[in-house]
Amino acid sequence: MGDALRTDLYEMTMLAAYHREGIADRRSVCEVFVRRLPRRRGFLLVAGVEPVLRALESFRLNDDEIDFLASLPELEAAFLQPSLRRFLKGLRFEGDVWAMPEGTIALAGEPLLRVEAPLAQAQVIETVLLSILGHATTIASKAARVVLAAGDAAVVEFGARRAHPEAAIDAARAAWIAGCAGTSNLEAARRWGLPVFGTASHMFTMVHRTELDAFRSYVDTFPTTSTLLVDTYDTIEGAANAIRAGGPGLAGVRLDSGDLGALAVDVRTMLDQAGMATTKIVASGDLDEDSIARLRARGAPIDVYGVGTRLTASTDAPTLGVVYKLAAIDRGGRMEPTAKFSRDKVMWPGPKQVHRRLGDDGRIAWDELALADEPVPGGTQALLVPVMRGGRRVSAAEPLGAARERAASSLRSVPPELLRRVPPGEHPAGPRPSPRLLALLEEVHDRVVH
Amino acid sequence: MGDALRTDLYEMTMLAAYHREGIADRRSVCEVFVRRLPRRRGFLLVAGVEPVLRALESFRLNDDEIDFLASLPELEAAFLQPSLRRFLKGLRFEGDVWAMPEGTIALAGEPLLRVEAPLAQAQVIETVLLSILGHATTIASKAARVVLAAGDAAVVEFGARRAHPEAAIDAARAAWIAGCAGTSNLEAARRWGLPVFGTASHMFTMVHRTELDAFRSYVDTFPTTSTLLVDTYDTIEGAANAIRAGGPGLAGVRLDSGDLGALAVDVRTMLDQAGMATTKIVASGDLDEDSIARLRARGAPIDVYGVGTRLTASTDAPTLGVVYKLAAIDRGGRMEPTAKFSRDKVMWPGPKQVHRRLGDDGRIAWDELALADEPVPGGTQALLVPVMRGGRRVSAAEPLGAARERAASSLRSVPPELLRRVPPGEHPAGPRPSPRLLALLEEVHDRVVH
Repeated sequence: MGDALRTDLYEMTMLAAYHREGIADRRSVCEVFVRRLPRRRGFLLVAGVEPVLRALESFRLNDDEIDFLASLPELEAAFLQPSLRRFLKGLRFEGDVWAMPEGTIALAGEPLLRVEAPLAQAQVIETVLLSILGHATTIASKAARVVLAAGDAAVVEFGARRAHPEAAIDAARAAWIAGCAGTSNLEAARRWGLPVFGTASHMFTMVHRTELDAFRSYVDTFPTTSTLLVDTYDTIEGAANAIRAGGPGLAGVRLDSGDLGALAVDVRTMLDQAGMATTKIVASGDLDEDSIARLRARGAPIDVYGVGTRLTASTDAPTLGVVYKLAAIDRGGRMEPTAKFSRDKVMWPGPKQVHRRLGDDGRIAWDELALADEPVPGGTQALLVPVMRGGRRVSAAEPLGAARERAASSLRSVPPELLRRVPPGEHPAGPRPSPRLLALLEEVHDRVVH
Repeated sequence: MGDALRTDLYEMTMLAAYHREGIADRRSVCEVFVRRLPRRRGFLLVAGVEPVLRALESFRLNDDEIDFLASLPELEAAFLQPSLRRFLKGLRFEGDVWAMPEGTIALAGEPLLRVEAPLAQAQVIETVLLSILGHATTIASKAARVVLAAGDAAVVEFGARRAHPEAAIDAARAAWIAGCAGTSNLEAARRWGLPVFGTASHMFTMVHRTELDAFRSYVDTFPTTSTLLVDTYDTIEGAANAIRAGGPGLAGVRLDSGDLGALAVDVRTMLDQAGMATTKIVASGDLDEDSIARLRARGAPIDVYGVGTRLTASTDAPTLGVVYKLAAIDRGGRMEPTAKFSRDKVMWPGPKQVHRRLGDDGRIAWDELALADEPVPGGTQALLVPVMRGGRRVSAAEPLGAARERAASSLRSVPPELLRRVPPGEHPAGPRPSPRLLALLEEVHDRVVH
C-alpha cells in the first residue's frame, strides 16, 4: 500500500472538481511557510525536505486505493464520470520544487518550499507535504535550541517511548541534523545511519538482588562500553558501586534524578579520585534547553545530556502552523499572482524567494522576501534552491551529514536576539519585503479587493 | 522489515546481559502506568491496546536486524557469545497480558496494562509498548474532552497536516474511540474503517476567478454532499454565494475564521430564510474544548466542529509520562514483589488490579488499587482483563466500535470534578490502595530499604 492516501479527503474532492472542470493541468505555484513562530522560537531549522521529495517521487494511487475512494459516499458522485478513475490512476507528481535545504535557518513568513506544478498535482500533495515538513522542522528547531544550550557537551536523543513509534524515528533524524550526537532509537539508527547510545534502566538494577550484582553483570557483558545508571537507590552509593564494578575502563555513569548539578560534581570527584578521568557523566531526566543551560551555568561536569520527551515531542511547541498557499496560477497563459486579504493573515502574492545577507560577524544581517524572478542582490544568498524538476530530483539525495554540517554552520549565523528565549507575545520580525514585492501586493490588492 | 528495532538500544544491551547471566527466562511482571496526569487532565481514556497486541504478536528479529545489532560497536562485545544470536533469532513474545480495554477511564497511578513474561521478553517490548499506548491514550484523552465539550454537536478530527503522517493515522483511530464522528484523514478512514469528512480549502476558492465560480464547480461535482468553505473573502458574502450555488440540497457551509459564534447565528438565519434548514454549519479554526464550550455557552448554532492541531497533536499536553515498572520477579521459584523508593516516586509493589465501584448515579464512586490475587469486592468491577495468554490473544481483535461504545458509556461515569478543567498544580487523586497492598508496601520497604 502506497502513501497517496495519507491526505485529507478534501484534497481528493477538490481534485475531482478540477478534473471535471478541465483545469486539473493548469500551472500553479504553491508555497509552504509558517506565518508566526511559536512563543519560544526565534528561528526555524528546516528539516524534512528529503522525506518530502521521497513522498513526491513515489506518489501514485493504486487500484485498491482508487476503489476505496470510489466506495466513499462523499466521492461517489464524482466517480460517475469514469474518466476520473483513469485520471487518478495516471496521477504522478511531475512538478518543480524549490526548497531551503535541510539545516537552513528560516524566519517567520519565509517560504520553506515552493511547488510549481499542474494544479491537481500541486493540490493533492498538500497534506502529506505539510505533515512531513512540519513535523521534522518542529523537532529540528527544538533540538537546535537544546544543542546550542549544551555547548561542548553532547546531546543524545532519548525520546523513543514518548512519541508515536514512526514519529520518533523521524524525530531522531531531525535531531541529528540539528546537531545531536546520536539517538537511543535502534530503528532510527539503522534507517538513517545514526550513532546509537544506550545505558541501562532502573528495571535492570531492580531485577538483580543488589545494585552491585546488576552493575557486575552489565560490565561483564560490555567490558569497555558500559554506562551504568546509578540512581536507582542512592546516587552516591550507586556511583561507588559503579566504580567498584566498572574499574578504570568504565565508559560512563548516568544520573537520572535529584540535583543533577550537585550530584555531577560529587560523582566527578569520586571518579577522578578513583583514577577514572575518562569515565563520562551522562545526565537525563526531563531535561530541556533551560535546565541544561542552568546546569552549565553552574559548571556541572556533565559530558552527555540524554534528552527525551521535551526534545522528541517538542512539548513546549509540539506543532508549527505550517500552511500551504497558492501564490500564482495560470490564467489564459499568464501566471497571475494570488493573495488572500484577511485582517491578520496578509499573504504576499506571487512566487517568492528569500535573499539573505550575512554581516561581517557572520550573523544574519537581514533577509529580504523577494519575487522569485528578481535578481539576487550581490552579497546575498538565495535560500530556496531547485530540488526537483519535472517530478525528478535535480541531484541525488543529499547525505544526512551534509544537512548536519549546514545546520552547524547556519546555527552560527543566528543573531543573538533570535537565539535567546523569546518572551511570550513577542515575535521576532520576519524578512523585509523587496520593493517589487510591495508593489505587487498593492496591485493584487486592487484587483482582488473591490 | 519488522518492528522489533523500534526500541531503545538499552533494551538490547540489558537483554544481552540477562542472556549471558542465564536469567533471560526468569518470570517477571511489569506494569504500565502514568504517575501524574498532565495539568489539564482529570482522567485518561485508554486507547492503543489493540495496536500493542499486534506489535507483541508480530515481535521477531530477522537476520538483517540481528546483523545490524551485531554490527554496532555498543553490542559487539555481547555478540562474542554466539548463543546470543540464536537467542535473539528465536525471541518471541510468549507472555500473558492484562489490560484495561480501550475506551476505559483510568486515573493517575493505575496500571493500564500488566505483562507477565520471561524477563527478556518483558524487557524488550518496553519501548514500543510505551510509545504506542502512550500516544494513543494521549490523543484519546484529549479527544474525549473535546467531544464532551461539543455535547450534541459532532466533532470531526481534522489534524492530518499537523502531526507526523503515521501518528496522524493512529490519532484518528484514538479520536474515533473517544467519540469523534470521523476524520478527514483518508488513510485512517481506510485502515480503521472510519467515516471520512471533507469540505474544500481556501486554495480551491482562490483558484477560481470568483468565489461563486468555485462554489458552482464544487456543487456540480458533488450535488448532494457539498460543504462549502465560505470565509475566503467575506463570510457573509460567502454564505450568500453558497446559498446561490448550492440551493436547498447543500449539505453544509464551513466557517474557518472570525467570530464563529456571531457568524454562525447570521449564517443560520440566512440559510433558514433560504429554506435550507437541513444545511449544516461546520466550524473550524484552532478549536479546542475551551473554545467549543464558549461557543456552545453562547448558543452558537454549529452542527459540526472540525478540530485539528489541538486535538490530533494534543498540543496542551502532547505526551503522557507513561512508565513501565517491574512489579515482581521470580526469585528461587517464588514471585517476589518489587518496588522503588525515591522521594517523589513511590511505586506500589506486586502485580496489581484496579477495582472500580460506581455510585447510584452511575459515576465512579471510588477506585481501589489492589493486588492482582485479591478477591474482587462485590459490586465492583476489575478493570484489567486478560487479553493475551502465552503470547496469543485471548479473543479475536475487538471491533473498534465496541471500544467506542465502551468509551461513550465510561465517559458518562466520570465524576464532574474530574471532567471540569483542572486548575494548574492541582492533581486529582488516584485510586486508594487496598489494605493488603498497603501491608505489602511496608513489607517490601523493610526488605529493600535498610
